[in-house]
Amino acid sequence: MTQQIRVGLFGTGRIGQVHAMSVATLDEATLSWVCDPFVEGAKQTAAEFGGRVSDDPHEVFASGEVDAVIVASPTKTHLDLLEMAVDANIPVLCEKPIDLDIGRVDALRAKAASAGVPIALGFNKRFDRHFVELRRRVGANEIGALEQLVITSRDPAEPPAAYLPQSGGIFRDMTIHDLDMARYFIPDIVEVSARGANVFSDGIREANDFDSTVVTLRGSKDELVTVLNSRHSAYGYDQRIEAFGATGLLHVGNKSDSLVRYWGSRSVESAGPYQDFFLERYAEAYRLEVAEFLRAVRGLPSRSPGFEDGRAALILADAAEESARTGVAVAVNLN
Amino acid sequence: MTQQIRVGLFGTGRIGQVHAMSVATLDEATLSWVCDPFVEGAKQTAAEFGGRVSDDPHEVFASGEVDAVIVASPTKTHLDLLEMAVDANIPVLCEKPIDLDIGRVDALRAKAASAGVPIALGFNKRFDRHFVELRRRVGANEIGALEQLVITSRDPAEPPAAYLPQSGGIFRDMTIHDLDMARYFIPDIVEVSARGANVFSDGIREANDFDSTVVTLRGSKDELVTVLNSRHSAYGYDQRIEAFGATGLLHVGNKSDSLVRYWGSRSVESAGPYQDFFLERYAEAYRLEVAEFLRAVRGLPSRSPGFEDGRAALILADAAEESARTGVAVAVNLN
Amino acid sequence: MTQQIRVGLFGTGRIGQVHAMSVATLDEATLSWVCDPFVEGAKQTAAEFGGRVSDDPHEVFASGEVDAVIVASPTKTHLDLLEMAVDANIPVLCEKPIDLDIGRVDALRAKAASAGVPIALGFNKRFDRHFVELRRRVGANEIGALEQLVITSRDPAEPPAAYLPQSGGIFRDMTIHDLDMARYFIPDIVEVSARGANVFSDGIREANDFDSTVVTLRGSKDELVTVLNSRHSAYGYDQRIEAFGATGLLHVGNKSDSLVRYWGSRSVESAGPYQDFFLERYAEAYRLEVAEFLRAVRGLPSRSPGFEDGRAALILADAAEESARTGVAVAVNLN
Amino acid sequence: MTQQIRVGLFGTGRIGQVHAMSVATLDEATLSWVCDPFVEGAKQTAAEFGGRVSDDPHEVFASGEVDAVIVASPTKTHLDLLEMAVDANIPVLCEKPIDLDIGRVDALRAKAASAGVPIALGFNKRFDRHFVELRRRVGANEIGALEQLVITSRDPAEPPAAYLPQSGGIFRDMTIHDLDMARYFIPDIVEVSARGANVFSDGIREANDFDSTVVTLRGSKDELVTVLNSRHSAYGYDQRIEAFGATGLLHVGNKSDSLVRYWGSRSVESAGPYQDFFLERYAEAYRLEVAEFLRAVRGLPSRSPGFEDGRAALILADAAEESARTGVAVAVNLN
Repeated sequence: MTQQIRVGLFGTGRIGQVHAMSVATLDEATLSWVCDPFVEGAKQTAAEFGGRVSDDPHEVFASGEVDAVIVASPTKTHLDLLEMAVDANIPVLCEKPIDLDIGRVDALRAKAASAGVPIALGFNKRFDRHFVELRRRVGANEIGALEQLVITSRDPAEPPAAYLPQSGGIFRDMTIHDLDMARYFIPDIVEVSARGANVFSDGIREANDFDSTVVTLRGSKDELVTVLNSRHSAYGYDQRIEAFGATGLLHVGNKSDSLVRYWGSRSVESAGPYQDFFLERYAEAYRLEVAEFLRAVRGLPSRSPGFEDGRAALILADAAEESARTGVAVAVNLN
Repeated sequence: MTQQIRVGLFGTGRIGQVHAMSVATLDEATLSWVCDPFVEGAKQTAAEFGGRVSDDPHEVFASGEVDAVIVASPTKTHLDLLEMAVDANIPVLCEKPIDLDIGRVDALRAKAASAGVPIALGFNKRFDRHFVELRRRVGANEIGALEQLVITSRDPAEPPAAYLPQSGGIFRDMTIHDLDMARYFIPDIVEVSARGANVFSDGIREANDFDSTVVTLRGSKDELVTVLNSRHSAYGYDQRIEAFGATGLLHVGNKSDSLVRYWGSRSVESAGPYQDFFLERYAEAYRLEVAEFLRAVRGLPSRSPGFEDGRAALILADAAEESARTGVAVAVNLN
Repeated sequence: MTQQIRVGLFGTGRIGQVHAMSVATLDEATLSWVCDPFVEGAKQTAAEFGGRVSDDPHEVFASGEVDAVIVASPTKTHLDLLEMAVDANIPVLCEKPIDLDIGRVDALRAKAASAGVPIALGFNKRFDRHFVELRRRVGANEIGALEQLVITSRDPAEPPAAYLPQSGGIFRDMTIHDLDMARYFIPDIVEVSARGANVFSDGIREANDFDSTVVTLRGSKDELVTVLNSRHSAYGYDQRIEAFGATGLLHVGNKSDSLVRYWGSRSVESAGPYQDFFLERYAEAYRLEVAEFLRAVRGLPSRSPGFEDGRAALILADAAEESARTGVAVAVNLN
Repeated sequence: MTQQIRVGLFGTGRIGQVHAMSVATLDEATLSWVCDPFVEGAKQTAAEFGGRVSDDPHEVFASGEVDAVIVASPTKTHLDLLEMAVDANIPVLCEKPIDLDIGRVDALRAKAASAGVPIALGFNKRFDRHFVELRRRVGANEIGALEQLVITSRDPAEPPAAYLPQSGGIFRDMTIHDLDMARYFIPDIVEVSARGANVFSDGIREANDFDSTVVTLRGSKDELVTVLNSRHSAYGYDQRIEAFGATGLLHVGNKSDSLVRYWGSRSVESAGPYQDFFLERYAEAYRLEVAEFLRAVRGLPSRSPGFEDGRAALILADAAEESARTGVAVAVNLN
């Protein structure tokens, strides 16, 4: 295919704009449609990155001008748009989570499995160069059998209060990224335990959600995975993974924009603060995520996570929620 | 008191000899009796560090020549020796755990509480200079309210197979140190969850024990503590604590004996391996532990952990064992 | 100026192509002419980044189609092209060194000083984000008065043997970058001492050049600057600056592409190798260098180094050469 | 020899007391005489560490009660005491420098060379575990041929003004340690260049001394050594060595007493300050220095530096002083 892939975008919020920029940056694609019921948003995004404007997904699919779509609209619209794409035989990259209701996800599962087009899920961390290197080196047996995985993920600051009710809770909204990362290393998770706490945010407590959590997963080979989450972090976005194996350990640390360190009378070797948040830390990963999806669109081998990965992450998040509420470890079957 | 404190030692295994050396090194104390049913061990230790030799604890207590005793004998003898010391009105430093049976511990609890002499427990990590500094700085509010504590503790290699049956299992034998460290920061623990796994040792599996574990504790202020344990570590003794608070993070890393780092064509900034094991890593802490006990013996203010700390750690270890077996979080009351 | 700046490029070797890519990347500029006596090189570069092709600089200047020129041709052509640009009243960004003969440079000095257009010199390290931050923080008095500056600069591998005779020697070819960096922090250098050695390269020795050097500069406030150079480095491109001041120290370390570190039985905390060479390490700096030059072209305030900086660096390099040959410290006057 | 070595100590200032403590700590030695014209100092040291008291060196040598002597008195007395020891056939450990006058040193050279007893020089850095490891690894060819050595040595604060006139200047007083370290790696130094500066201390300037210096040495294999010195350092005692070789680099960094690091909103990964000064940083090295001397006393193989090392360091320091004053590189012959 020497022609550019015409991409339709649904949703023009923060992440929608990131994807619009990625499409605009990549040589092999062009933004052909930008769709948002908040049509002003669509107009602004189209003005900056190209494409026709619509507030109606049906118009986009019917236009005959989209070779692929990206779903970056609110969570509650993901599943319907995904199904519309499958029905229209249009490849789709869908932001996580697929949906907050596993029943609705399962209802679409058979159709997704037999879809004639690629379905990719927006787990951006899988495209981070450092995590990719970590997984490659674990796979290359540098540390022997993987025994423990420790994922630390702390956001700089809690989300806006208005967002909380529709977030699905910390496990389905934030932890779900780390649950997918766990599966990036250990696909077959068989058990989920979780504890949740409220230590700093009244708003989160009032939303009946947690602001601090620890999740323990068990893999089918008895690997233990620990996911540490907090909704705030005074020192910036904290994104680390430690892989402990039989013969060694590999670690991905945090990323600073600066190579400068300071020595003074009260402290030494001080580095500057870390990159602010996911748009900075994962800027390259977001581009690679879209690029990898476009490979799939072209029929090339692609390592994009798919529908089953999105479903698995939701099952794990649901199980974490249940375990955090009941105090009981939950057995899961991702097959 | 200008006189030297005469110390009686029970047990001349590895840790008994460490304590013998500490007593011999400290100006304010002298080793007056060394007692071990394996009398050859007692003779050798006495030959090196001083003291009369016995295979009978009653002879030691009856000698009138001990101002304090250290119990470093096998676990099953701890409680009886501790009680003999209390009955004899002799200050006692007792290795952990007090006993493997919380019922027997509770039976002695009232007597211990009303004892007229100091009872100190051998939680050596509380005397490590770096952990002490960490706690001081957390206490000084450098990171605001403590929200998450992550304790990583991995031994270089599994213990001898013969030791496993009497160890009480990984939680009561190894994790117990980290459970006490959790209480060093957050004394009031209210809940214990644990998962155990078998990933590398057939011997440990056959002993019906775990070789890899994750424990999650909850403090009364909703702090979450994670304890990561493994019975082996390819890169040496791994002893880290991360304290995450509302306004920052403090971390104690591993200790290398060497300041030399290497840069080559395949890797850069490589440090030498870490200190081998607890005798090296906590050499200073063991001395300070005995020194602090001797302060208590002299009637001076002392920060030695006591009987209640030993009991609390055992309760937490028991709860971890139960939770690991049942998959259910266990509420605990340490009062 | 809302129109794009039309840029003429002289020279299509390695660094010429870097500049061509920068121009092509920047929105405010377009490559209008590509000129190289090796016309095939010009054709290839133009095919990739745009522009008309020529092998004659006069044709370029006479075309009326260049608003600015970049001189990236061999050193011996720099001065003439620079003079042609000044005569044509065309802003010019000239690669270092201006020339290998200070007499020729001085002959052009008055004309350059009275030129009506910006003359920028290609000292790319001045645009490295980390060195810029270092200088800003030194300027902000974070470490008090600057007392010692230590610049370490080691290339991965020696240049091709064919390049050596025209290089002007290590001081004018390689050290000159670090001499300019010294002046970025301490503009007024008053004395140069240097020692050169031959430790690994027969080819460099046969070219009567050094492969290992140490230069000591003195600033007018008695600051001491040390520049450590080697023509090879087993662990990759080594680019560090240490600024030692009255109240602290600031340091820029090397840059690795990877956040992954490894712990094993023989070494711990090992990072991956550093970025290969200047095209990788200073990729962003090269873009910023051109962008900053274009600011000057537009008449905006610009921090590009100029003709006097190029002359000063050559004087220092000449003095280093002289001192290395005679063993005598050389007083310099950069005014 | 199963008997303890009876040691006579000359000088009871700061470094004399360090040596007294080392002797008292070592099992194989005992302090038999403490000699100081300031007899109160001798009395206090003897009271703490043992030994008879004298203010007259002749009394000590005549006593027949010294198997070895340590000379830690003021510099101007070193040479005479060293000669008295040689004449008395008593092994001697002499603090650096041997003397400030190379003529006087050379006058004793033949006698020292033919002495029947060990003469050791007090270059404590040679006994630092980390520098010893560095040298061993360089010697084991881990980095191929040594090409550049960079020694950074900055004292926390300038010495008392009263000490300056008798110090012999920064090169003979402070740099001399680093010059000996250079020879620890590269014994055959053939050339010395130096620059000195005055950047912070009026007192040092008035004493006609430098407070900031850079020395460049050349080895007989064209190795280049750089020694960076400052008489103050805001972030504590700065003691680093970088060994750059054909196939890699090895580095000894600074030593912190603490493993705790801090992450906050303004800086991350901050360590605590470094060890205060040489008594802390080289505490172990001072003990090993005496222990190694005692090995020589017993006739065992010993790696203590000797008279020739002391003479060589003084020659290099003299050459550095000359070069710093004249601006001319000075050829030296250490044979």
